[in-house]
Amino acid sequence: MTDDPESPRPAPPQEVVDAVREAVEAGDSARLVDLLEPLHAADVADILEQIRAGERAALLRLWGREIDGDILSEIDESIREEVIESLAPDVLADAVRELDSDDVVDILEDLEEPAQARILGALDREDRAAVEQSLSYPEYSAGRLMQREVVSAPLHWTVGETIDFLRSEEWLPDQFYHVILVDPRMKPIGYVTLGRILSARRDVRLSDLAEESFRVIAATEAEADVAYIFTQYHLISLPVTDQAGRLVGVITIDDAMSVLDEEHEEDMLRMAGVGEESSLSDGVWDTVRQRFPWLAVNLVTANISALVIGMFENTIAVIVALAALMPIVASMGGNAGTQSLTVAVRALATRDLTASNAKRVVWRELVVGLLNGVGFAVVMGLVAWAFYGRDVWLGAVIGAAIVVNLVVAALSGVLIPLVLHRLKLDPALASGTFVMTLTDVVGFFAFLGLATMVLL
Amino acid sequence: MTDDPESPRPAPPQEVVDAVREAVEAGDSARLVDLLEPLHAADVADILEQIRAGERAALLRLWGREIDGDILSEIDESIREEVIESLAPDVLADAVRELDSDDVVDILEDLEEPAQARILGALDREDRAAVEQSLSYPEYSAGRLMQREVVSAPLHWTVGETIDFLRSEEWLPDQFYHVILVDPRMKPIGYVTLGRILSARRDVRLSDLAEESFRVIAATEAEADVAYIFTQYHLISLPVTDQAGRLVGVITIDDAMSVLDEEHEEDMLRMAGVGEESSLSDGVWDTVRQRFPWLAVNLVTANISALVIGMFENTIAVIVALAALMPIVASMGGNAGTQSLTVAVRALATRDLTASNAKRVVWRELVVGLLNGVGFAVVMGLVAWAFYGRDVWLGAVIGAAIVVNLVVAALSGVLIPLVLHRLKLDPALASGTFVMTLTDVVGFFAFLGLATMVLL
Repeated sequence: MTDDPESPRPAPPQEVVDAVREAVEAGDSARLVDLLEPLHAADVADILEQIRAGERAALLRLWGREIDGDILSEIDESIREEVIESLAPDVLADAVRELDSDDVVDILEDLEEPAQARILGALDREDRAAVEQSLSYPEYSAGRLMQREVVSAPLHWTVGETIDFLRSEEWLPDQFYHVILVDPRMKPIGYVTLGRILSARRDVRLSDLAEESFRVIAATEAEADVAYIFTQYHLISLPVTDQAGRLVGVITIDDAMSVLDEEHEEDMLRMAGVGEESSLSDGVWDTVRQRFPWLAVNLVTANISALVIGMFENTIAVIVALAALMPIVASMGGNAGTQSLTVAVRALATRDLTASNAKRVVWRELVVGLLNGVGFAVVMGLVAWAFYGRDVWLGAVIGAAIVVNLVVAALSGVLIPLVLHRLKLDPALASGTFVMTLTDVVGFFAFLGLATMVLL
Repeated sequence: MTDDPESPRPAPPQEVVDAVREAVEAGDSARLVDLLEPLHAADVADILEQIRAGERAALLRLWGREIDGDILSEIDESIREEVIESLAPDVLADAVRELDSDDVVDILEDLEEPAQARILGALDREDRAAVEQSLSYPEYSAGRLMQREVVSAPLHWTVGETIDFLRSEEWLPDQFYHVILVDPRMKPIGYVTLGRILSARRDVRLSDLAEESFRVIAATEAEADVAYIFTQYHLISLPVTDQAGRLVGVITIDDAMSVLDEEHEEDMLRMAGVGEESSLSDGVWDTVRQRFPWLAVNLVTANISALVIGMFENTIAVIVALAALMPIVASMGGNAGTQSLTVAVRALATRDLTASNAKRVVWRELVVGLLNGVGFAVVMGLVAWAFYGRDVWLGAVIGAAIVVNLVVAALSGVLIPLVLHRLKLDPALASGTFVMTLTDVVGFFAFLGLATMVLL
């Protein structure tokens, strides 16, 4: 126990990072150990992520023996493989052996074959079997997320029997918050919080202390559902069952919190058309590769807009001011579309947008698009009239085009993610690019088309 | 305890929502109670959010007596006031009295004065004092988030003394996962997990069971820091101290998880320029009001782009194809800028982007922008040459403009959020609009400017 509680200064402070760098540069391993020793594994992992690749290799060489499993499990995937490969086999074996099964699985998932084999080889037979069993569940499933170390008790036990059992048990998980009640076939049928066990008399039956609401999840269910259930029902742990309904593991809230965080990151990155695996520690080439595909899609869609504009070259040749004004229509649409889109993607992720209210939400977006459209049409119509040749009809044309484009933007912003969701695709999947393309094309077409009809 | 664990089907299924609606329409309160009774408060809240305002009022009239505090605490802020106002005073009083202090504070924060007074009036004196004390901490601070119900013990107690104390204590919080060790001045100095207490012999001292790492947070610290500490260090509960360092409350992980979720939402909505308070249950006018401001900003910035284009009207009048091609340059920049921006905003939120690596990340973005720029410049240069008059120089101009704009996009995508962060503003704050403006202006200027110099 520390006498002085660590102050909650987020992240390892800059001075520590700088001092670590100096120690590494000086090759001063004693100083390095002094600096890193008091830090939480998560902070050590952050330092490893923040320094340059060369410094990282030097640090690991100087400090290699001391690295423990928690650091491997905290470190970002983008550099984990590099770190694991730099460790001596016996150091790696020691590091991995102290981890719970879910953490080992989490590390293994993202590694290439040879690194995986090195880690599996370092485990003793029983742990290896547990890890391999977890890996047999589909990726991103509850089975991959659970830890196999579970504390369970028969329904008929009393508080006293439970306490005696826990006292006699040599090995208990690091983190457990419930005793799960099971029937003779190991089917989970309820759970009791440790707080209730501690505050009850020894002769009280566990079944009388069980929580009112109780949920389990099948090992094959999706990770995203796990995160949802934890947030929706404020759970601390969730028992996992196999096909026969038997208890095979438990998921704790810290794992659910990581999933929630990852899901969110995925949504943001996907909406922006960035590879969802992207990370700040990725190198230049990885980053180029992640971003290239959606930029390529955007190049194609931008050329479609150019074709639309090209259709009206004769109109632009006559009234060149149209060329200056047309991006305004497109840009207002793009902005309004992004607003609707963001709200819809978020609402689908939190499951607030459902079949019950989809029609109402689409309708609301339409009305909002129309109202904002009319508002900005009036303003922009006046601006165009005042500054682009005092032509009332030019003002009318840009106003009408803005109304059309803002309605299309509002509708596509909510319909595109709804359709992606219905097709069982991620609603966030680069929907930004789709919405922008649509509002560009519609914006240019409506504005230049109306201009051709009205102004020529 | 339920005999059959509820299956983890996310959200109340469509059939239940439909059945509830039918019961409300038929005015069948017995059926309504039957339908809602077995549901978790979070699911009842979801149903209330998903039905129309009229149906909601009818439902609450039919079912009013049965509503409990948990439902009020689960319900979305956008309709909470409406629900609270529809309840009879005694129903509201009963509902609020069963809640923990942090939940009451959470409800009160978002209410207008008269509704606040109604709820405070419903509490008994002691609870009211606790709630008012929490409200005296700044908004979005740890003090607002904590529950005041804490289980603590003197450092010198044994396991046996602790268990005897817990058994004799009439009142314990619903959720507690640690016993917090305090010195005689109530300063927290460590904690012991309940699992360790349960598995130790009665004569073991609590101080021998305390967790290795221990953190506290001051009541005045920001909510965002709370969420960060929970994720970074995988905490389950975090003791809160007052200015004198005395234990005044505890924050549990479910509250931290909600904060994390809200922070995510805020980031997404802010980046898109949507009011961060926006919700799917908002009415049309609220939604128009939330979205109008950033659309107005966008109108101004779009007019700046128009001015830039206007500077080159003579060039466009000579080569009309430029009008068709110029949005391609702008759009590629906008897209690339959004990619960098999203990665940077996310990295600032997770505190992966720090002073230690900012220079390196900016540099990486620059190189990535340059490489992607050159790649797409070659492709688009060839396309422009092939389809727009076989003019080598036109291809060269659009290529060069794309390189310039992608470099600017990449840099501004990371620099704008970094500057906002340095200014202690939220990096997500409509940075999308800023980046888009910049890439539009630079794109049009570079392309049309080069064209004027080279092609005329």
